[in-house]
Amino acid sequence: MHKIAEVEIQHDIMAANKKLAKRNQRIFDKADVFTVDVLGAIGSGKTSLIENLIEKMDYKIGVIAGDVISRFDAGRFEKYNVPVVGLNTGKECHLDAHLVKHALGDLPLDDIEILFIENVGNLICPVDFDLGAHLRMVVISVSEGDDTVEKHPLIFKDADIVVINKVDIAKAVGADENKMFNDVKELNPDAVVIKSSLKTGEGLREIMDNIQKFME
Amino acid sequence: MHKIAEVEIQHDIMAANKKLAKRNQRIFDKADVFTVDVLGAIGSGKTSLIENLIEKMDYKIGVIAGDVISRFDAGRFEKYNVPVVGLNTGKECHLDAHLVKHALGDLPLDDIEILFIENVGNLICPVDFDLGAHLRMVVISVSEGDDTVEKHPLIFKDADIVVINKVDIAKAVGADENKMFNDVKELNPDAVVIKSSLKTGEGLREIMDNIQKFME
Repeated sequence: MHKIAEVEIQHDIMAANKKLAKRNQRIFDKADVFTVDVLGAIGSGKTSLIENLIEKMDYKIGVIAGDVISRFDAGRFEKYNVPVVGLNTGKECHLDAHLVKHALGDLPLDDIEILFIENVGNLICPVDFDLGAHLRMVVISVSEGDDTVEKHPLIFKDADIVVINKVDIAKAVGADENKMFNDVKELNPDAVVIKSSLKTGEGLREIMDNIQKFME
Repeated sequence: MHKIAEVEIQHDIMAANKKLAKRNQRIFDKADVFTVDVLGAIGSGKTSLIENLIEKMDYKIGVIAGDVISRFDAGRFEKYNVPVVGLNTGKECHLDAHLVKHALGDLPLDDIEILFIENVGNLICPVDFDLGAHLRMVVISVSEGDDTVEKHPLIFKDADIVVINKVDIAKAVGADENKMFNDVKELNPDAVVIKSSLKTGEGLREIMDNIQKFME
């Protein structure tokens, strides 16, 4: 009986989150804000990628920066003079739709065309928690090892865009970025998979073009 | 390995459906169409309820009528002179987001304020298939027996509004409508639960008022 009770509680949480995600999406759609849930492990380059997109994309951008404890990531965005809200999840390893709803009250949605939501750095917990975003972008890097895709299949199956970052150091860390690319494609043939290096600028144009394609 | 493969395929289908549901919702939101997924067992009164709402609600209404084989339900709506599309699911016991997307092409969304999607009559299969609707309304009737809620808990946990229909014949069929009401409330304290009889008109005003409340 104990197991059943756990499953039921889990279902309750998911059902509540799903409803709130729908409400969030309705708020985004009505304000014509295209929203991107940015997921990935710690250190994969999520924050740097969003910084690059703020600088290079010709849209009014806003950011929700999720973090387990500190407000470090939110702080990094402040110098770009775009609307940013930091979300502290405490011990939780993912954002949820309810937390995002709270952040929306502090954002000038009418003045935002793309909202990036930087999720907590984790490749497992966030999978089942829809935030109401239109697009899921997963950022991984070669320094996590080229078995990182096969070790965390679910997050890649749900992704629309997968960025394999830091390919400039692949050889140095002994990782095969092509294996990672193929592993994603095998799990999710529909995903757009892009090899990138934010240091050299490789892949950045392709990432921007693909976000724009999803907005149409 | 067989079991794992099945779970993986199931996950693929759910991930694909979730994406399409999001796209559907974006289409609804942009056209300002409030969409209601109407679920319930065969004979519970889904079609009759939608007919009543078409007649009594002061909104431009459209209908997608799902059905396993016949086009009977879609035919019933034609006399109301509202846009209707019938969806034949074949052997499938639920609609999915992809089918609904197809139907949208045949509906004049700019001329619809509320879209009712009548799902296939079933209390189990449709639960996990989000269609992109804003509201889930489950219609059951006392003639299914007053244990029907406890027998199908999941569909009630996901519901926003639950209609317990045909209360006028509760005594005749030996069912306790208050037990059904309490069973839903126990599973899902947030659900709006309404006892109704489309024959006497009981509950209809309350159903309309609550749909309107969710639209705000």
